[in-house]
Amino acid sequence: MGKALIIGAGGVASVVVHKCCQNPDVFEEICIASRTLSKCDALKDKLDGGRTKIHTAKVDADNTDEVIALIKSFGPDVVINVALPYQDLTIMDACLATGVHYVDTANYEPPDVPKFEYKWQWAYKERFEKAGITALLGSGFDPGVTGVFVAYAQKHHFDEIHSIDIVDANGGDHGYPFATNFNPEINIREITANGRYWEEGKWIETAPLEMKKTYDLPEIGPKNIYLLYHEELESLAVNIKGLKRIRFWMTFSDNYLNHLKVLENVGMTSIKPIMYEGKEIIPLQFLKEILPDPATLGPRTKGKTNIGCIIQGMKDGKPKTYYVYNVCDHQECYQEVGSQAISYTTGVPAMIGAMMIMKGLWKKPGVFNVEEFDPDPFMDALNKYGLPWKEEFAPVLLDPVEVLA
Amino acid sequence: MGKALIIGAGGVASVVVHKCCQNPDVFEEICIASRTLSKCDALKDKLDGGRTKIHTAKVDADNTDEVIALIKSFGPDVVINVALPYQDLTIMDACLATGVHYVDTANYEPPDVPKFEYKWQWAYKERFEKAGITALLGSGFDPGVTGVFVAYAQKHHFDEIHSIDIVDANGGDHGYPFATNFNPEINIREITANGRYWEEGKWIETAPLEMKKTYDLPEIGPKNIYLLYHEELESLAVNIKGLKRIRFWMTFSDNYLNHLKVLENVGMTSIKPIMYEGKEIIPLQFLKEILPDPATLGPRTKGKTNIGCIIQGMKDGKPKTYYVYNVCDHQECYQEVGSQAISYTTGVPAMIGAMMIMKGLWKKPGVFNVEEFDPDPFMDALNKYGLPWKEEFAPVLLDPVEVLA
Repeated sequence: MGKALIIGAGGVASVVVHKCCQNPDVFEEICIASRTLSKCDALKDKLDGGRTKIHTAKVDADNTDEVIALIKSFGPDVVINVALPYQDLTIMDACLATGVHYVDTANYEPPDVPKFEYKWQWAYKERFEKAGITALLGSGFDPGVTGVFVAYAQKHHFDEIHSIDIVDANGGDHGYPFATNFNPEINIREITANGRYWEEGKWIETAPLEMKKTYDLPEIGPKNIYLLYHEELESLAVNIKGLKRIRFWMTFSDNYLNHLKVLENVGMTSIKPIMYEGKEIIPLQFLKEILPDPATLGPRTKGKTNIGCIIQGMKDGKPKTYYVYNVCDHQECYQEVGSQAISYTTGVPAMIGAMMIMKGLWKKPGVFNVEEFDPDPFMDALNKYGLPWKEEFAPVLLDPVEVLA
Repeated sequence: MGKALIIGAGGVASVVVHKCCQNPDVFEEICIASRTLSKCDALKDKLDGGRTKIHTAKVDADNTDEVIALIKSFGPDVVINVALPYQDLTIMDACLATGVHYVDTANYEPPDVPKFEYKWQWAYKERFEKAGITALLGSGFDPGVTGVFVAYAQKHHFDEIHSIDIVDANGGDHGYPFATNFNPEINIREITANGRYWEEGKWIETAPLEMKKTYDLPEIGPKNIYLLYHEELESLAVNIKGLKRIRFWMTFSDNYLNHLKVLENVGMTSIKPIMYEGKEIIPLQFLKEILPDPATLGPRTKGKTNIGCIIQGMKDGKPKTYYVYNVCDHQECYQEVGSQAISYTTGVPAMIGAMMIMKGLWKKPGVFNVEEFDPDPFMDALNKYGLPWKEEFAPVLLDPVEVLA
């Protein structure tokens, strides 16, 4: 069918590449590009020989001109951006300049301040419309599948959705006393930031990890979950009409939080450089260096993830509840693609998002979040490409919202 | 009366200098010497103007020839070694070469391996005898006052001592989530080493912090205490005849141990260098750099220490128990000498040990531990110079040893 340029060569990119190669009718040719060519070549070596033709290239995604030159020489239908969130805008600029569709999995962040906001990317809407190309934002799991789950619930199960609780649980155990799943810097920022949720048209801020509940998750068991801000809250609060409240919850073990608290107490999570033997060293960067490399967690991690949406609303004049979730097994993922579930659950939806555009199912000029498209083909693809989902119609609710009689 | 050369300019040295200056009849002249002359000069500036004449000098205590040259030029009666334990032997060599008495507060350790043993220093016995000079080892609090307490108990309260439990409690609070009292490297090594105690002529090893009890300490209250090896166990097991068991216990708060455990888990207490941006960095050294400087704890620390010996044995054919201890208030110490109780309780006995030699009360050629001398003048000096002691005759015992009927 066509060609995709994949920018990035980390854990998620590796899953995207594996999944594109499982889907050669759509992805006839791919190019893997990143700052480190050897990483791209290693992926190519691993997967070469199938029906998908694999190219590699060196590119600095901070440099729009380099990305433009690469797009011009490879000629993809879509760019799948699984590089760093700091690089979303330079890559979008390159897509605009070349008239190529764009997919990513996480919203743009300014490199200096942790700010999870869509405003910078939403500002590209008119330009993408005029260029006649699609930008699909946040096509990972959360954001991504969580938005598709909500759109699916809206389409098939509700007249009006009142409340959404997204619950992201990782029941995996890597056997180290402490390690972070992917980039520890991002992990640590996630936890030390204030929480935030949306209710009745307003954002309500909480102290970091202030709101805590225990939830008994299917196939995972009871876990402590903590309210965090997560970027899909912003787009879903806009796109789901009639919504009264939306929140995001994530599991953290007591052990994990204790380690993080101590490291914060002693100053090891600080990003303020200190002088050490005449050299400026950022404590968080040094910590990253001594912690287990996230890439080594894959083969060691046992257990499952469960990510889903607990939804409450009205159908045919009656209150209704609905829970849709995916359970993903770390070891099965590792056996299939050499990455554990954290990367797997992000990489598969990125491939599916690109496929939706290439097949013309989600191709519309402008900048969109996943919940703005028809969820059905995406939901089918999840079942087909390794992220099957399950439903419950009487889940335990976290805090029921008041329902209209 | 005479002259003392004080080698070292850290927290303990500062207390020694203050205390010598409070005792100008004995310490007519002192010289403060260390690798960093400015630290010595700062101490001199603080205390100059009293009856004790203060000199300063720069010396590298690792270099015996430099120490010999300094001793020859200043001409002290005694050298008080409050430098690093790695430097005990070079300083003892310099004392032998010049015929000057020697006092220290902690036994020699080889710089590469943590080994708390008297064998290296005891091996100097004959040479000190032949030179007609005294080496007084371990004249701090523990070792030091704890040995004097035992000798005092032996002299006045027991025919035979069967069991000694030394309990070192720090009830101080510096208000930081985590900090170490003095050199964090030494603190951390103390806790991560196996425990060891002596019973019926044999050393019994425990896992680190394996043996834990709660003890209600006078003026401090109930604390968790943990069995550790401590160097005075070695000399007391040799010098107290009839002893069946001797153990050492130290308080650590749950919070302190939790912080330390996490730092150990993530590799921050390791002394194995890692490569970081092309430079070898030892994680423990970097940790030391980001933790609060121990020197800043003094003004912040509130609460008291309690260090003492719980002793069980026979007197006049009957079982007897005896507890002798000192309670020291961090803030009172700080007001008096600008250091908190940890440095104070070590520095005062170092001054007293030197005074015992200068006054001729403990002057005997050879190498000795404090319990080998008459405890009475030392016990009097403790009361006079800021470390008054108290007695109890029915203390709660930790584990009573079996008593002969």
